[in-house]
Amino acid sequence: MYIHGYGERESERLLAQAASVVLLLHGDTRFPPGSRVLEVGCGTGAQTVSLAGNSPGAQIVAFDRSTASLARAIERVAAAGLANVEFVHADLFGLPFEAESFDHAFVCFVLEHLSNPIAALQLVQQLLKPGGTVTIFEGDHGSAYFHPHSDIAHRAIACQVELQRRAGGNACIGRQLYPMLVNAGYDAPCVTPRVVYVDASTPELVDGFTRKTFTWMVEAVRGEALAARIIDAASFDAGIRDLYRAAEPDGVFCYTFFKGVAVKPRKSATGRP
Amino acid sequence: MYIHGYGERESERLLAQAASVVLLLHGDTRFPPGSRVLEVGCGTGAQTVSLAGNSPGAQIVAFDRSTASLARAIERVAAAGLANVEFVHADLFGLPFEAESFDHAFVCFVLEHLSNPIAALQLVQQLLKPGGTVTIFEGDHGSAYFHPHSDIAHRAIACQVELQRRAGGNACIGRQLYPMLVNAGYDAPCVTPRVVYVDASTPELVDGFTRKTFTWMVEAVRGEALAARIIDAASFDAGIRDLYRAAEPDGVFCYTFFKGVAVKPRKSATGRP
Repeated sequence: MYIHGYGERESERLLAQAASVVLLLHGDTRFPPGSRVLEVGCGTGAQTVSLAGNSPGAQIVAFDRSTASLARAIERVAAAGLANVEFVHADLFGLPFEAESFDHAFVCFVLEHLSNPIAALQLVQQLLKPGGTVTIFEGDHGSAYFHPHSDIAHRAIACQVELQRRAGGNACIGRQLYPMLVNAGYDAPCVTPRVVYVDASTPELVDGFTRKTFTWMVEAVRGEALAARIIDAASFDAGIRDLYRAAEPDGVFCYTFFKGVAVKPRKSATGRP
Repeated sequence: MYIHGYGERESERLLAQAASVVLLLHGDTRFPPGSRVLEVGCGTGAQTVSLAGNSPGAQIVAFDRSTASLARAIERVAAAGLANVEFVHADLFGLPFEAESFDHAFVCFVLEHLSNPIAALQLVQQLLKPGGTVTIFEGDHGSAYFHPHSDIAHRAIACQVELQRRAGGNACIGRQLYPMLVNAGYDAPCVTPRVVYVDASTPELVDGFTRKTFTWMVEAVRGEALAARIIDAASFDAGIRDLYRAAEPDGVFCYTFFKGVAVKPRKSATGRP
């Protein structure tokens, strides 16, 4: 079963991603001093460092179900000299927190892996105080396009999307944040696209995003895609070559993340669970 | 041969487009008092009004090869009470202007229709004074995606792209602005994506953009697409239905325009023509 987030190159990939899109994702995400913020599924802490660093007066409570990831996250946060993060080993569907015990929640690159993201958003809502907010970041692989255009590169990307679908997730979830937040019972959802546009004028994004974030992510499913016979090796490899081609000096690459913010209603009939 | 820009519904479509994306495209486009600005292919003046209104001290020289479009543009600019536009009936490849006689140039939704957009950019460069800038806006139909996703809607969109290609144009040109500006010999190109993100929280964009700008544009090629046997009627109509579906309350629609700005080199070996 494919879940990205584990492995050696994958760690470097997540670092490259965090570095190349950190401003895009975190630039306008701040939580007030004294607030208690839940980070859902912190993984290896790639986002936790930005989250905690940008809101030094907030207390972050970060959890993940993987002890290995959590260990990395703890190291990383310590190395950054951040003291405002508490880590908890737990699963989203069995959290040891009291209802209405958080001011805000932060959910980054998590919903894409869940078979019922709306149920997850409703769970998070129960943990929020009335008037508290949820902040979500998700990508959308259907938003990727590039120059030169390549059908076979899109077929390689589709392998990743298909494998994530078979694992119960949705790699094209970004565009759905608005209706999901509405369906989960939140008020006033506000969704904004965050485009990563990469041309030769930003070589650090060519390397950090086009190559090491996106193309590596697709490349990582090669073995699984071939084993599942979703694609043949020659086609997959040609697709990957065309993705690297978009990182050449006359190439262009575009990808869109989505940020959604919404409020737990102050007077709610609580979740429709 | 398909060229959008003519016809009754098309006029309303262009108005809806101009109204719904005017800030996105023109919000940061201003030319200094006293400057002489060439608008290439002004059409019916949908952009001319914003251009001239936002830079009241600049003198705009707008040309188009269609007298019918030009007549509409003249009316529209007069109705807006703008006195800083001069209209010229001319073709891009036979312009009556002296070399290096403009401070800036503005080219909006024109390159997508040309078989050699780089040659056009080089022609424009000859008309610019050294150090003058060219500002370009183009869309990219390959940037369109929506919720719910629909393969058949993408097939309907592909009809428009294919017909524009057969007419010598490129409906997916937006992503190519950076390499085109480099190839045309401009300095310091800066390209930025301008995303139209539409969900139910902005009903004016649902109507003005998803329905009346994008879906109408695709719908307009129905006859031609069927005549050219690019698609069958049932598939095309199903695709259009799915585009309207994205305008329902739980639907989402995304499209990206690109703005490019670049400078004519001060000391150039002039154009490689």
